[in-house]
This record gives sequence, C-alpha cells and structure tokens, in this order.
Amino acid sequence: MSVKETYYIGEQSLTFPKDVYLISSASVVGKKEGEGPLRDLFDMICEDDKFGEDTWEMAESTLQKEALSLAMGKADVKPEDIRYLFAGDLLGQNIATSFGLMDYEIPLFGLYGACSTAGESLSLAAMCVGAGYARMAAALTSSHFASAEKQFRFPLEYANQRPVSATWTVTGSGAFLLSSKKGKARITGVTTGKIVDMGIKDSMNMGAAMAPAAADLIAQNLEDFNRTPSDYDKIITGDLGYVGQEILINLLQKKKIDITSVHEDCGILIYDKEKQGTGSGGSGCGCSAVTLSAHYLPKLEDGTLKRILFVPTGALLSTVSFNEGQNVPGIAHGVVIEYVGKEA
Amino acid sequence: MSVKETYYIGEQSLTFPKDVYLISSASVVGKKEGEGPLRDLFDMICEDDKFGEDTWEMAESTLQKEALSLAMGKADVKPEDIRYLFAGDLLGQNIATSFGLMDYEIPLFGLYGACSTAGESLSLAAMCVGAGYARMAAALTSSHFASAEKQFRFPLEYANQRPVSATWTVTGSGAFLLSSKKGKARITGVTTGKIVDMGIKDSMNMGAAMAPAAADLIAQNLEDFNRTPSDYDKIITGDLGYVGQEILINLLQKKKIDITSVHEDCGILIYDKEKQGTGSGGSGCGCSAVTLSAHYLPKLEDGTLKRILFVPTGALLSTVSFNEGQNVPGIAHGVVIEYVGKEA
Repeated sequence: MSVKETYYIGEQSLTFPKDVYLISSASVVGKKEGEGPLRDLFDMICEDDKFGEDTWEMAESTLQKEALSLAMGKADVKPEDIRYLFAGDLLGQNIATSFGLMDYEIPLFGLYGACSTAGESLSLAAMCVGAGYARMAAALTSSHFASAEKQFRFPLEYANQRPVSATWTVTGSGAFLLSSKKGKARITGVTTGKIVDMGIKDSMNMGAAMAPAAADLIAQNLEDFNRTPSDYDKIITGDLGYVGQEILINLLQKKKIDITSVHEDCGILIYDKEKQGTGSGGSGCGCSAVTLSAHYLPKLEDGTLKRILFVPTGALLSTVSFNEGQNVPGIAHGVVIEYVGKEA
Repeated sequence: MSVKETYYIGEQSLTFPKDVYLISSASVVGKKEGEGPLRDLFDMICEDDKFGEDTWEMAESTLQKEALSLAMGKADVKPEDIRYLFAGDLLGQNIATSFGLMDYEIPLFGLYGACSTAGESLSLAAMCVGAGYARMAAALTSSHFASAEKQFRFPLEYANQRPVSATWTVTGSGAFLLSSKKGKARITGVTTGKIVDMGIKDSMNMGAAMAPAAADLIAQNLEDFNRTPSDYDKIITGDLGYVGQEILINLLQKKKIDITSVHEDCGILIYDKEKQGTGSGGSGCGCSAVTLSAHYLPKLEDGTLKRILFVPTGALLSTVSFNEGQNVPGIAHGVVIEYVGKEA
C-alpha cells in the first residue's frame, strides 16, 4: 500500500490506495431489451417479465438475485467471498434490493441515487476495495418497467399515453464484482456528484432534469483529473436519452468543452427508437448497469476501449414531491474505468 | 498511515487506516420530542412541526438542513470544508434528503437503510475519512412523524387508532461531522449488518421485526472484536422499543450473551411512555441520530462513557411490499465510539 496520506483530487474526485479491478459482471434483462440492438450481448434475457413471480416488485427482486448469481458464477465466487453489497433500486424503501438480496446473507449498504445508483454503487464498492476494507465487494442495481410505472406514473392497466420526451424504464439488473485481485478492467478513479436543480418540473422529461447534473459532473471530472474529452475513448451517460443528450452537449459547449466525438448514452443504445417505440430512450438504474456490463466491459477487456468515463444520471423525485409541486433535481456519479492490458 | 494491507476483522467488521473523530454534531427535534425526557439536551426544539413549510415533507427537509447547519456552526465549518455527505431518510426516493441538502452543494451519497440509516451513514462516512478519501465528511439522517405516517400508514387526518406494539416516529434530524482531525470522540470500528428475516408480517410491530437483526449484529460485533458485553459501557439500539428490547435480550441469552446490564434503546429513552402515549417507544432514523448527538456524545466527550456500541436498527418494508403480503425483514448497522481523553 502507498504511504500517501490522502487520495482526493480536485473538488470532487478520488483515486485509491490500492488497485481496484472489475473481475466479473453480469446482465439480466426483460423481453423488450432482449429485442433491442444489444440483444446478443446480454447474459440472460427472460421472455416472462414477471420472471416467474406473482408481482412486478418480486420480479425485480429476482432480476437482482439472478444478476448477482451469474456474476458470481462467472468468477467462481461464493457469497461468503463477497464482504459487502452496495445495492439499490428505484422503488420506495428499496424493496427490490431488500427482497432480492436477502438470501445471500452478505453485509449490505442500501443506496438510493435514482438512476445514478449504478455509478454510486460502483463508486462506493471501489472506495471500499481500494481502502483495503474488503478483498471483494459487489455493486448491484435494477429497474423494472412495470414496477417503475406503478411507482412513478400509472399502473400499466390504465393504458396511459406517454409524451415523446418520456423515457422507457429498462427491465434489467447489472451486477459487478470488484476486487483487489487483477481482473478484466481497472477502476482508477471516481467523481461524486452534487444535486443540481435547474428548475425542471416535468417528470415526463427526465433527460432535461438530469442533463445539467451530468454536465457538471463531466466538467468537474475533466478539471479534477486535468484531462480533456479526448483523454477518454468514451464518455458514457446513463439514461439522458435523445432529449437529454442534446441539452448535455449544449451545456458543455457553453463551458468550452466539446464531447460530441466521444459521447454515448446507454439510454440511446439499448433500444431501437424507430422499431421499439421507446420515446426518448431507455432509463432506470438497470439501463446503465446492463449496458456497461454487456456492451462496454468486453471492449475494455479486449483493449478496444482504453479508458472510459461512465456517468449514470439520476432524477430525484417521488410522486409525493412531484404532486407537491417540487422541481425534479438531478445527480450524476462518475466512474473512470481503464483497460488492464497484458502487463505482468 | 499504517502500512497494513487490509482493515477487515472477523466476518463483518472493520477498523480504519487513519484515526476517525466525531468533531461536531447537532440535533433538531419537534414539539413532542421537546416535551420528553431528553428535552434539555437537544440543540433545537421547534414548536411548529411544519418548521414554517407548506408540507410535512418539506418540513423534514428543513430539519436536515437545520441540523447540518448547526453542526457546521458549532465546529466553525463551511459547506466547502465537507467533502461528502452520507445521508438518508425514510421517505420513498429519499426526498427529505434530496430537497433538504441540495443548497449545500456538497457531493452526496444517498443511502437507504430504513431506521438503521444513522448507523449506515456513520459507517460509510467513517470508512471514507479513515481511508484518507476526505478530511471531513458528514453523516445525516431524519424522520418526521407526519411524513412517515402519510408514507407508511395513514394520513394523520384519518385519526386511525394504533396498537400498543406500534412505535411513534420521531420528528428529528441528527447531523455528525467526521474528521481525521482530533475531536470529541473517536470512531474505532464498524460492524455492517445483513438482512435478517424472521417471518414477521406485522408492520405495526417493528420492534419484533428488527430485534433479530440487532441480536445478530451485536453477537457478530462481540465475536469480530473478541469482546464481551462488559467491554462496552453501553450497547445502544436505535428504536426497538419496549417490545423489541425484550425480544433482543432473549435472543442474545439463547446465544449465552447477556447484555441486560449495558443495553439501552434510543426509542425507549426519547419519550415518557406513560405521560406521552407513545406506545412501544420512538422510531425512525431521526430517533437514534438525535439521541446519539444529544444524550450520548456529551457523555463520551467528558469520559462518563468510555466505549459504546451504537446499533441503529431498520425494518425493511414499504406499503407496496406490505400490501403484497411480504414479511418485514430487519437490518442493523453497528458503530463503535470511544472516549478520546486528554492524551497528547
């Protein structure tokens, strides 16, 4: 271990005393995601969006359970090898997580960062492994279209119409195992987000609510690490969608930062907008998690990508805050992930 | 900094590479708590449970904002001195936290551990400071009787009756500043809880739901640190209340652990059961937080207490999980806090 005293960089970023590796990951998705552009990359596609359960919430719990089981299986890891779970979902009181992960009997830190939770969980798990607090920790998030519609909008049975700016909550869960043992890719730093409120009131336009937080986070990451956008092969936001992407690029251009050549958004990648009728794109904490696991990590493992900035974005609202006329503030959490290479 | 490689102990516990101190704390409570046995110890008692706001949720946000402001004021700290906030509340999607802490513009890790969140937030903030990730971090939680009744049971206007096993959600917020700089008391270790489900179905008897998790956590802490109950001046649970305390003591006696002489429960301490009609006791993540700040920390500062194990306890349910017939599992997070003394 290094003898440095502190590991913080700039205003909002960190490196770690010990190396932190992503040694395994898994993605489990629903039928619609399994019909989208990334269909050949997911580890498991379930034809039944209830995953054999009686309720949408238990279906989401099963998503998390399966994702973690698959990630453990790939790395030949048992639950007792994992010292901490950092996990969350979108539902009130994190019930998908509580009921999904209970059986593993692993110490749990429950998290809530809306759709940014994939970034929050990876950040804290990396901080934990990087400090020597655990040989292995897991980061895990999920979302489910039906449980989210019931929670935030209307039960599916109401057959409500949706504006084009609305995103489509991804049914999916991504699980990641982090370890100090050398693995597929290395997490070299994190940038932790502040809440940013630009006065957006429309819960059907979450891309607009989250874009300012993503812009702040990306600008701060570049400043803290003294980098330019071209120092990243990709800067990947979680679920801004088409509407949010345009706002993000414009906001950063005002700060003289041009990310157009390296920016991608998991919410745009996961569905075929024209064929699948998914509005502005995918959303939910499962969206960025399954896309990182299925699409980006293999490219980081084989060296197609050398360094990415992964920035899941969250809209901080509940039906209560929305009905009481509150704004929809945003938050984003950034994780720098790099190619490990073949060096000894 | 030590050159040790790892800091985990036993199955579920940790120590830290660097010393971690509690340098300041504050407690803000509502009218009822201000009429209870601890009335002379709180930093602020508000006669208006709406704290000047239009809604119960915004009132709870104001509680958090005021508690952090007071804790900062006592230590002459500015928001920019605090690198991370670890914070949470009981409401769906953590809205009390999001809207309460937004204005401080401090990087935020949103947490959900039900009423155990006071322990979860102190654990993660201590891990963060102890690793050299921050010079200062804040841990913050809140609950509010009226927003919790609306969220979990019935709006107050319905005037529902309550069974005697029901606890009374504390209106209050506790804020803690943790630093590597020497201060009032030292956090020397944490024990992180697993979810424990003993099949309790009654959301009006949360003490019974949480007691098994508390028993597991306390037994594990003693084993991990190779201690007996008498190595602690107090073992303090969060909000088991009278019903949960009896179950906890019985469960530990079955494991040949007798905590009767050192056990106290914040939910029992905070109200006068006979005069205040508070059923089994206080609950909510504000309950343990304000009691630690107002009642226990001064005793740790002056040496009346030399070492305590602080164990906030949470019941993992939502109205959705409850209505769908799920059990109410529990979780607990333990924090070891010690007297600093006068040594150089």
